[in-house]
Amino acid sequence: MTSIYTQLRPIFAPRSAAVVGVSQDPWKPGTTMLRALVEFGFNGRLYPVSSRGGEVMGMKAYPSVESLPEAVDVAFLFVPTEVLVDVVRQCKAKGVKGVVAFTGGFSETGSAAGRALEAELKKQFDGSIRMIGPNCLGVYSPGGGVTQHPGEGYSQTGGDVAFVAQSGGLSEDFCRAAPNFGFQCSKVVSYGNACDVNEADLLEYMGADPATNVVGMYIEGPRDGRRFARTLREVAAAKPVVVWKGGLTPLGAAAASSHTGSLAGSLEVWAALLHQVGAVQVNSFEELLDTLAAFHFLPGLDDRRIGYVGAGGGNTVVAGDASYRSGLPLPPFSPETRARLDALLPPVGANSSNPVDVLAPMPSAESLKGILEAIAASGEVGTIMVDRIVLSKPLRRLMHYDVQAPVEDEAWLEDIPIDLLRSSGIRVVVVLREYLDPHNDPAVEVERVRLRCHYQSNGIPVYPTAERAFRALCHVVTYNERRRGL
Amino acid sequence: MTSIYTQLRPIFAPRSAAVVGVSQDPWKPGTTMLRALVEFGFNGRLYPVSSRGGEVMGMKAYPSVESLPEAVDVAFLFVPTEVLVDVVRQCKAKGVKGVVAFTGGFSETGSAAGRALEAELKKQFDGSIRMIGPNCLGVYSPGGGVTQHPGEGYSQTGGDVAFVAQSGGLSEDFCRAAPNFGFQCSKVVSYGNACDVNEADLLEYMGADPATNVVGMYIEGPRDGRRFARTLREVAAAKPVVVWKGGLTPLGAAAASSHTGSLAGSLEVWAALLHQVGAVQVNSFEELLDTLAAFHFLPGLDDRRIGYVGAGGGNTVVAGDASYRSGLPLPPFSPETRARLDALLPPVGANSSNPVDVLAPMPSAESLKGILEAIAASGEVGTIMVDRIVLSKPLRRLMHYDVQAPVEDEAWLEDIPIDLLRSSGIRVVVVLREYLDPHNDPAVEVERVRLRCHYQSNGIPVYPTAERAFRALCHVVTYNERRRGL
Repeated sequence: MTSIYTQLRPIFAPRSAAVVGVSQDPWKPGTTMLRALVEFGFNGRLYPVSSRGGEVMGMKAYPSVESLPEAVDVAFLFVPTEVLVDVVRQCKAKGVKGVVAFTGGFSETGSAAGRALEAELKKQFDGSIRMIGPNCLGVYSPGGGVTQHPGEGYSQTGGDVAFVAQSGGLSEDFCRAAPNFGFQCSKVVSYGNACDVNEADLLEYMGADPATNVVGMYIEGPRDGRRFARTLREVAAAKPVVVWKGGLTPLGAAAASSHTGSLAGSLEVWAALLHQVGAVQVNSFEELLDTLAAFHFLPGLDDRRIGYVGAGGGNTVVAGDASYRSGLPLPPFSPETRARLDALLPPVGANSSNPVDVLAPMPSAESLKGILEAIAASGEVGTIMVDRIVLSKPLRRLMHYDVQAPVEDEAWLEDIPIDLLRSSGIRVVVVLREYLDPHNDPAVEVERVRLRCHYQSNGIPVYPTAERAFRALCHVVTYNERRRGL
Repeated sequence: MTSIYTQLRPIFAPRSAAVVGVSQDPWKPGTTMLRALVEFGFNGRLYPVSSRGGEVMGMKAYPSVESLPEAVDVAFLFVPTEVLVDVVRQCKAKGVKGVVAFTGGFSETGSAAGRALEAELKKQFDGSIRMIGPNCLGVYSPGGGVTQHPGEGYSQTGGDVAFVAQSGGLSEDFCRAAPNFGFQCSKVVSYGNACDVNEADLLEYMGADPATNVVGMYIEGPRDGRRFARTLREVAAAKPVVVWKGGLTPLGAAAASSHTGSLAGSLEVWAALLHQVGAVQVNSFEELLDTLAAFHFLPGLDDRRIGYVGAGGGNTVVAGDASYRSGLPLPPFSPETRARLDALLPPVGANSSNPVDVLAPMPSAESLKGILEAIAASGEVGTIMVDRIVLSKPLRRLMHYDVQAPVEDEAWLEDIPIDLLRSSGIRVVVVLREYLDPHNDPAVEVERVRLRCHYQSNGIPVYPTAERAFRALCHVVTYNERRRGL
């Protein structure tokens, strides 16, 4: 039998594709999918299939799958529930390699008719053709020019993070959000009812996919728990797998039962399972994305020692609390390092212990540079986190920090963390807070987005709070320690 | 003895003020404070005091406190550490009512000299004059025209939320952030070393202050634990007091010891104390602001029953999980309400249970309006939370949601929650997610800020995630239940 990777590759990187179920109505799903593929830049051969024939978007529409000029790599199916089985049969007869069935109305309805239709659908699959869905939003594979439905506005840049989701909506949010967290996706799959291809198949695929370095998953209930656990263990041994399990409370479980018909399982069983197989468990969308960003930016992080540089005594106290609660308590600096820092810090009110307090959020560029370099040179930490420092001149002005010292006289600040990363090789994390401006001035947000993207595109992960940064980093360290048998 | 309220009122609403320690250097702290007061709009009589006399910012500078033409309500002191005691003596002799001492170098340095100076300073206070500080950022009291140092860019609009902080930096962040969370401040105080006025005095003041409806506090270690506990109990019986206790972990406690010389106390003791006195405990800056926003917008919330309206099956599952974990599990709707909702929801793929799934994030205005009105009319919940619905036409366009249905044909969506609040009186909460745009387009952030402010200024609290909204609401319900003896 051919590998899952060989079987599914035509779906993720098709040379030819058909959209089955397009119409003259520009807002019907099949038509919006066709348009989305064109606008997303699919560059293989593309065929609309419409029972009425004619032309759609200037392309010849074929009246049936059978009439297509070739056996396409993938067919995207937007056909009515009742005819899906028949269309899959036609695809199989034609030699189509894979289908993605967006159509709903099957087991997820909870009705006897829906379950019967899905049982009939399931019978079609013997490995000669593979199907994702039904009842899904499909596949986003920027390297293969494939997008979800509709997915028109998604990023066309590929990356190293895969996401496999038993929820269309969460997969969509993921595709939209990923670039905000500084990474791009290799593949994102909403797999719906998993009538043929299931979560274990997709996880195995991402494990084998050379473009994927880290895998995220949203799971309600796996179709084959044993195989899923086995695959998790195998893939997690090679690359990090971050799992968000929905439905771990009675209320979530009830919703999962009506969403995907899943038996959600208990909190304790899942926590134990995920721990045993070496997967990373997260419990919210933010934690999922924060953690994947940490794996993307700092894949090899296996050093718990973080040096924290912030501003203000209270800020130092709560950063200490946050680091301790996260499982990455900040280590004390040696007397030698403290002496070196003391020489660089303001004489009164600052603090050279770890967490470091530079006193106020607008240190001079020279002073900040010296402090960070001294910490990097000490060898006493493996990562430096910079928090509550206003790192951009425009932000200092917008936030009125130039009331205390004229910003115009400052050296250019914002590249200090980037220069440090390049010159010292120490890992650097920046915390850029989101609530900043007492006048709700959108200019502050615009500048914050610019600064965030600037750091992210220069290899530095950015978090909105130190708490979230510590939590994400702790997941990476713990994974790497375990993998290395520490 | 006059009440704390009478004693401290001149500091928060002074008719006359002196800034002691100004100079010709426009960037020295005293001078920046003077400028900040002028630009902030202090409209009482304002006197610079500079040992060299002359003119500062076009105002006559008096050579000493003694030479001032009147006994001012408040003197802001920016004098060297060694002379602070003497200047306080002069203020006392002059009949000045209150002083705010920004100067540092006292007990917070940990040195014997600093402690001795502070002991000497402490001796000056017998109730005839009151002091905030030393080693603080002072007072923000927009109603009284007073701002922190520097605090020039702070909002000039007063509100109903007070914040009392043993940290200058956190008090500053609070002043900047509050309007982003939709509320304004009555008073914010950074009280530094609490050499005279301490946390219990300030809490008592806020308890008595008619402009303050809810009090937030950041505490490392109270100066007088018993009185603080007693005052907490008294004030919390009248208005909510939300306490963030820093230094509850070994690392935070170590930082607190060097920041304010506080013995931070144990996690268990503090949790028990705060629970006993009826205060609300929070553990991060976000939780503090989220919770104060909930008390500001929904002060009387005493109904645990929330109706959740979101989009997508997976989203529904994780919202159910989040509500359950927060302590506000969503109650099921009656069969009658479900039947009413089913008639309004898409026939396949939506869900009328609570959490409600409207299927996709871009329901029509008509459908969304009908669903929210049906839930409000049911009487089965006291609050409606709207999440993962793209509520603005510009956002639907910017996020390419118009690929599925043309936005141009939609009725105006964004006021539906506001209209609901006005017409039905049910409480409404909006969740506006922050990670939205795969292209990091700042226009999305600008529109999000506009939409957030639009809801907040119309009485609707806005949270970036459902988790944070549930957590904040649970604090309010729990407080109100307890207060009413439930």
